[in-house]
Amino acid sequence: MLARLESLCARYGLEDLAGRLDSIQRFMDADLGRLEEILADIPRRGQSIVHASARHLLERAGKRVRPLCVAMAARVGRGFSPKARELAVAVELVHSATLLHDDVVDLGETRRGAATVRAVFGNAASIYAGDWLFVEALRRVRLAEMDDVMDRMLAVIEEMILAEAVQLERRGRLEPDRAAYFRVVEGKTAALFRWAMFAGGRAGGLDEGACRALERYGQDLGVAFQAIDDLLDWSDDTTAIGKTLLADLREGKMTYPLIVGFERDPRIGAVVRDAFERGDGVIDDADGARLRAMLEAAGALEDCRALARDRALAAVASLTPLPESEATWALAVIAEATADRRR
Amino acid sequence: MLARLESLCARYGLEDLAGRLDSIQRFMDADLGRLEEILADIPRRGQSIVHASARHLLERAGKRVRPLCVAMAARVGRGFSPKARELAVAVELVHSATLLHDDVVDLGETRRGAATVRAVFGNAASIYAGDWLFVEALRRVRLAEMDDVMDRMLAVIEEMILAEAVQLERRGRLEPDRAAYFRVVEGKTAALFRWAMFAGGRAGGLDEGACRALERYGQDLGVAFQAIDDLLDWSDDTTAIGKTLLADLREGKMTYPLIVGFERDPRIGAVVRDAFERGDGVIDDADGARLRAMLEAAGALEDCRALARDRALAAVASLTPLPESEATWALAVIAEATADRRR
Repeated sequence: MLARLESLCARYGLEDLAGRLDSIQRFMDADLGRLEEILADIPRRGQSIVHASARHLLERAGKRVRPLCVAMAARVGRGFSPKARELAVAVELVHSATLLHDDVVDLGETRRGAATVRAVFGNAASIYAGDWLFVEALRRVRLAEMDDVMDRMLAVIEEMILAEAVQLERRGRLEPDRAAYFRVVEGKTAALFRWAMFAGGRAGGLDEGACRALERYGQDLGVAFQAIDDLLDWSDDTTAIGKTLLADLREGKMTYPLIVGFERDPRIGAVVRDAFERGDGVIDDADGARLRAMLEAAGALEDCRALARDRALAAVASLTPLPESEATWALAVIAEATADRRR
Repeated sequence: MLARLESLCARYGLEDLAGRLDSIQRFMDADLGRLEEILADIPRRGQSIVHASARHLLERAGKRVRPLCVAMAARVGRGFSPKARELAVAVELVHSATLLHDDVVDLGETRRGAATVRAVFGNAASIYAGDWLFVEALRRVRLAEMDDVMDRMLAVIEEMILAEAVQLERRGRLEPDRAAYFRVVEGKTAALFRWAMFAGGRAGGLDEGACRALERYGQDLGVAFQAIDDLLDWSDDTTAIGKTLLADLREGKMTYPLIVGFERDPRIGAVVRDAFERGDGVIDDADGARLRAMLEAAGALEDCRALARDRALAAVASLTPLPESEATWALAVIAEATADRRR
């Protein structure tokens, strides 16, 4: 991480690295600290099973990378105003709403180290709590009073749903399909990152051109983020690999390392198909470790990291038209850190 | 029906009844005919399982009473403009979205005389298609460019979700609770009728006071509409009573006739509880018919019709501040017809 930061510093001609990192840390503490309070307060507004369900998810902090995008994009402009904060809350609520619906669809049992809402409160509560968070998000977008931001939010939610539909239709199909992979990743993940950057920029008072540059950053960052998520499924801790892999395939999720592996080494496809087609198909720990070794040997894991790095660099390149500032520097660091993420 | 129309004519001093009825029919044919085309076109925009799911529901025409409310409210003002039509489409889409989610929650098998979306395409498709229709509805509300109409739409969707939560929490509870009943009916049904009337009035260019009068009409009409739905569960065709009744109770739905019945005749509660508490509890046709007779004898069915009539009259009374026109007359007829509905 430090080496990459230094290369960044060299690229941007920045000297006071320690000072810069401190200021990024201060931004993030200030911006995201208040955000956690707001997110925690939302489900306290009522006592129903919908509120309890929302609380269960929102109390378990995720990475909050989408609100961070809003905050940093706003800081590229006039700063992280109360209006920008509403949009940062909104993007995390939309993300949370999709998780609540996805867990029902995928019969998810755990999330963020705890039982899912559907496991604790039931499918119905998870569906309605997701609906509620969608509405709560849209109310905050409305409060920000920028029609184009609202219109893009609605368009992005549609993109997310249609990407879910692509995934649904691919359930149980084991062919590697790069086009379908990118369609899903761009819809499910990158679209909301894109919105976060656009919305933050608009709230920061930036002009159309600057907002579009930020949007391109968000698009590439989203793909990089998802590629690393895919890679981390194949982390050294292989005990969970088999279970996760088969569950993913049943849900139509073919991750990037597996696509590359299928393309490069027919034995990988054979092992997976064999396990998948056995009725009670499981991939045991030994098979999981063996698959990981085959993907490693085929260069699939390295390729996945390279995809993330390429997209992170593209994201950084999108920042070029923007005036240099602590905020653009922070966005560059976030992109690099995303591609280097180890957990 | 004719007698009630005559009493209406007397009340409003209208003479040319036949002419009036013709003009209402012309309104409705013109307004709702085009609406059906638009609703049918929406899911044709794509080929995914989400579009197919939406098409499956939207092709089976419901009563379209909510869009009719928008159309008539708009006609109280300047008329059923393209903007008002967008809002009429939106209200039907929101209603449809809630049906798609409710069917997943209630494991519904049939709707509008066909298999439900979840039965044909699965729960996942029904959830995402519901999400998609919500978004599609909100995009149309945004296109109408009236911020207060959008804000009320979001508030009403929240009300609907929280009413679903009340129902969820009452699953399997057999105590009659009028307060909970009205909370659920007002949230699940009346809130959207209220929005339809407000939105139509605003699109028709009416002032705040007139829109609020229309809103009150919608609120009362919604309760009347739901009371009749409740009553029709106990129609003379008793073969389905037992099955519907137990399914409703499992889903937390205690309908109005049953609440009145429980209050007036302890034997009614005993029969229902007995069937409900048997593990494989069914109410057979004979028991269903007997229950119906007991509710009839207790005056519960008549009370339910009376509730609908009271609310329909209250709805008509809300129209008083509005200038008399064919549209207000049509709204009065719709209210009366709602309370007299036999199917």
